[in-house]
Amino acid sequence: MDKKLDNLRHSAAHLLATAVVELWPKALPTIGPVIEEGFYYDFDFAGYKSAPGLEDLSKIEKKMMEIAPKWKSFDKSEVSAEEAQKLFKDNPYKLELIDELEKNKEKITLYKSGNFVDLCRGGHIDNPSEELKHFKLTSIAGAYWRGSEKNKMLTRIYGTAFFSAKELEEYIGRQEEALKRDHRKIGKELELFTISEKVGPGLILWLPKGNIIKEEIENWAKETEKDWGYQRVTTPNITKSGLYYTSGHLPYYKDDMYPPMKLDDGEEYYLKPMNCPHHHMIYASRTRSYKELPLRLAEYGTCYRYEASGELFGLMRVRGFAQNDSHIYCAQEQAVEEFISVMKLHEYYYKTLGITDYHLVLSLRDPKNKKKYHGDEEMWALAEKLMREAVSKIDIEMVEDIGSAAFYGPKIDFIIKSSIGREFGISTNQIDLFMGKRFGLKYTNKDGGEKTPVIIHRAPLGSHERFVGFLIEHWGGNFPAWLSPVQVKVLPITDKNLDYSKQVAKKLDEAGLRMEINENNDTLQAKIRDAQLQKIPYMLIIGGKEEEAGKVAVRSRESKDLGQMDLKDFAEKLVKKIKAKELDLAL
Amino acid sequence: MDKKLDNLRHSAAHLLATAVVELWPKALPTIGPVIEEGFYYDFDFAGYKSAPGLEDLSKIEKKMMEIAPKWKSFDKSEVSAEEAQKLFKDNPYKLELIDELEKNKEKITLYKSGNFVDLCRGGHIDNPSEELKHFKLTSIAGAYWRGSEKNKMLTRIYGTAFFSAKELEEYIGRQEEALKRDHRKIGKELELFTISEKVGPGLILWLPKGNIIKEEIENWAKETEKDWGYQRVTTPNITKSGLYYTSGHLPYYKDDMYPPMKLDDGEEYYLKPMNCPHHHMIYASRTRSYKELPLRLAEYGTCYRYEASGELFGLMRVRGFAQNDSHIYCAQEQAVEEFISVMKLHEYYYKTLGITDYHLVLSLRDPKNKKKYHGDEEMWALAEKLMREAVSKIDIEMVEDIGSAAFYGPKIDFIIKSSIGREFGISTNQIDLFMGKRFGLKYTNKDGGEKTPVIIHRAPLGSHERFVGFLIEHWGGNFPAWLSPVQVKVLPITDKNLDYSKQVAKKLDEAGLRMEINENNDTLQAKIRDAQLQKIPYMLIIGGKEEEAGKVAVRSRESKDLGQMDLKDFAEKLVKKIKAKELDLAL
Repeated sequence: MDKKLDNLRHSAAHLLATAVVELWPKALPTIGPVIEEGFYYDFDFAGYKSAPGLEDLSKIEKKMMEIAPKWKSFDKSEVSAEEAQKLFKDNPYKLELIDELEKNKEKITLYKSGNFVDLCRGGHIDNPSEELKHFKLTSIAGAYWRGSEKNKMLTRIYGTAFFSAKELEEYIGRQEEALKRDHRKIGKELELFTISEKVGPGLILWLPKGNIIKEEIENWAKETEKDWGYQRVTTPNITKSGLYYTSGHLPYYKDDMYPPMKLDDGEEYYLKPMNCPHHHMIYASRTRSYKELPLRLAEYGTCYRYEASGELFGLMRVRGFAQNDSHIYCAQEQAVEEFISVMKLHEYYYKTLGITDYHLVLSLRDPKNKKKYHGDEEMWALAEKLMREAVSKIDIEMVEDIGSAAFYGPKIDFIIKSSIGREFGISTNQIDLFMGKRFGLKYTNKDGGEKTPVIIHRAPLGSHERFVGFLIEHWGGNFPAWLSPVQVKVLPITDKNLDYSKQVAKKLDEAGLRMEINENNDTLQAKIRDAQLQKIPYMLIIGGKEEEAGKVAVRSRESKDLGQMDLKDFAEKLVKKIKAKELDLAL
Repeated sequence: MDKKLDNLRHSAAHLLATAVVELWPKALPTIGPVIEEGFYYDFDFAGYKSAPGLEDLSKIEKKMMEIAPKWKSFDKSEVSAEEAQKLFKDNPYKLELIDELEKNKEKITLYKSGNFVDLCRGGHIDNPSEELKHFKLTSIAGAYWRGSEKNKMLTRIYGTAFFSAKELEEYIGRQEEALKRDHRKIGKELELFTISEKVGPGLILWLPKGNIIKEEIENWAKETEKDWGYQRVTTPNITKSGLYYTSGHLPYYKDDMYPPMKLDDGEEYYLKPMNCPHHHMIYASRTRSYKELPLRLAEYGTCYRYEASGELFGLMRVRGFAQNDSHIYCAQEQAVEEFISVMKLHEYYYKTLGITDYHLVLSLRDPKNKKKYHGDEEMWALAEKLMREAVSKIDIEMVEDIGSAAFYGPKIDFIIKSSIGREFGISTNQIDLFMGKRFGLKYTNKDGGEKTPVIIHRAPLGSHERFVGFLIEHWGGNFPAWLSPVQVKVLPITDKNLDYSKQVAKKLDEAGLRMEINENNDTLQAKIRDAQLQKIPYMLIIGGKEEEAGKVAVRSRESKDLGQMDLKDFAEKLVKKIKAKELDLAL
């Protein structure tokens, strides 16, 4: 978090509120926090027949521009609850906030800039008239007061601000690019996935073309992880509740789970929100010896979590997802080496996909709030020490985040950046000293004694859902050949070329390439455009010339004419390229 | 059903009851029906401190042998309820049966043979002293009176009978073989799968070795079905209840489903018991044209059905299963051809696996009980006609079964026989004229009009669970090389050969073969025996001689010495064999 930038944006939120109240004097400002990449402010426009809309944003911006140069400073004053109540007597939202501050015995502070006074904890820039110049309102939406559906619907205006025009322009450019790359839009255009209201929100139905991408990734993970010494298992999507009482997820994690299925005999079954306990049951299915360790059990296990409906977002935030999961059971003295290997596996995956910008976040306990966490001091310290030791031996930047550890131990997340600079937390990793004990897992040591294995959790490719969503944005839907649902489109110039085109298509199919043939009665230009819209990497254009020469004219998605080739030559080159998972389209 | 054989076995049940009552005069006979492959009789031994056990069966058999020659006939007499009540006054079970017969105004008949009189509907052999010679008691178990847990636990004695000693011997041989091939036993020995009481009964956890078999089958199905024009999809394991009200599964199928997950907002979610409605939602996700048909959507979808706990049986009868499912949406005029293709796909699969003994069962409505079924007369007649037309064009035997149709149409099941002659219903097929309408599925016809597609349901390989269970029995765990979890075991004769053995193992791994190396400090004989117990198809024995010559000595699971070979030669031959999915082990 950039504190200076946050202060700028917080100041811009005050400016937004000022402009809105000048334009709509009966509007009631409520709260206006800083968020990732910007800020918002929520207003109650109940005093008007209708709230402002998207078309009003430029008017508000203009007003903000007028006001900003007049603001010389943000002036703080501490007041009593009574004074504050008097000041905000017509605003029930602010009164509610004041009541809470009073109840919690917190200081009540006001900030004044120009004529505008707001109830505020502070965090502003020093010279608004000079610094508050480069801002933009980005959208407007409905939002419940304090996020609860039981409360009144307010109007939320979003915006952002930067210290320079250049940064603001870049941001706007990124946003426009992000809109073009929106995975929901591209997912629909390329027919990758759908969500059915009748099946349920947050539940992905993979269409044939999206399923090809998903399966290619899964097959790659299976091959790769086999080479890296993993063994695959498959476990059910449900379990008796007892397993989650053992793990501690019940009752602590209950709100994130679908409700139970209650049988007549009193037994409760839950959809699994994670694969760990199921894998532990496989570990526990017979006695284990130190000779078997590290035992790496892997599964693309489909889990279900009951995310709030407001949080759901295409493939990125879903209720059902297949996770690239694994649990590594090892001796404590093997843990650092295994964890390093897990980090390296991440790097291998990301490098292959051209994801070059990533870093780690080490999530630790909040030492002031220990009751949120299980386990003893020694265990927490040891887990942190082992993970730090592993990270010290690889070359990936790491930042720390206090307070976001799992309830049973610290964790390390991989944060990857898409090509347009957006960050995604994709994989959580842990050296877990806790669950082995909870589940009573054991192995027989060299000397015949019993020991508890350390468990490493990892998921380098996250879930199919989130990862494919990320890749769509990363490549703007222009998947490399090995992941493209259709790799080659055969385009006969006229109907006369259809027979030869079909022969070509058949040979491509025999070579194991995913191809389609455009049999429509369109112009070649229309056929090319259609293939480009479908983001198909290669087009083979078949005219009389090609047919006579027994060749194909190759064109890539990027409008590059790759020249005439022997069909066999083209197919062999492409098969090789696909096998090597190359990202570019040069042949 | 063989009525003569049933009469013999029913007669043997009377003989069993007679022998038991002679040996335990206070035992109360209850009921003794004929079942598949034999009969049983339930007794109440409450008059004794303990009921007889397995060790008593031969004593009872001996007594049956003594009595049988004295039985000249079964003599029928019809009596009044009062007479019957008097006769069975000390047996509350028979009295309960008599009450029911009286209530339902049915005739009450007795059958007498020797000194034994039983309440009985009849169905006996004519010459017991001559025909009742070849019988055997097979097991003994607890069973509730009339199958209800609320009633008293009785003792059930199982037996079987045949008309010739040869048939009985063959049966006993088959039973012994079936015990040796029991998929639960082999599944444990080869570490293929496990069931955890903590996860829940009927829920399979696939261990690494079983998972290899499952994935090989799945990959094969994916490749094959791609070649046959199928497209793969993936759908969630759950859905809102509404989908099953549309399909009609709710409320009709409710007892076979896990109970719902009830959300606070009143919405109910169910685990899917079949994939059909989810696939229909993919069909309905956009408008469809006749040009797209037949549209074949395939998925190894994991479904859940709440089978009664008493019905659960290893992999064969489970609560969670991944089905080799597909739904083919086509025009009515395409249905017969598509259905023939589906039949041929079955034959291709079964032939590849060496399953040569199979037939079809056509399940029709019970015309006397039409309220069990949906749909109109015309639809039922047409679906039957189309399916009969398809079957008439292929060469597979078909029998008919009245009364076992699905609620929405007739169906055709493939029944396959394992190598020891046991039958398994593995795949249900339907030409479904009903669900398309229920779900409002449409396509635009050539002339621009709207039509409803016909839906073909099919699952040639059934579920992974049941099919792998079948294959274990079919092959007695001796999987062909392509399905074997470990294909080659490398056996160094002494520790001196370990280094070379490791080089051999590495090369096998590089060739893509699944191998293990036995590094234990055992004799060669012990190592061979261990590999044979693990049913690994090939062993490479590595001694000084092999090491010097740079060769390997190859031995197959069937104790065949395949001679010395170049490692490269062995690996190439085996890879080729695996690719061709050959069933024998000759190289």
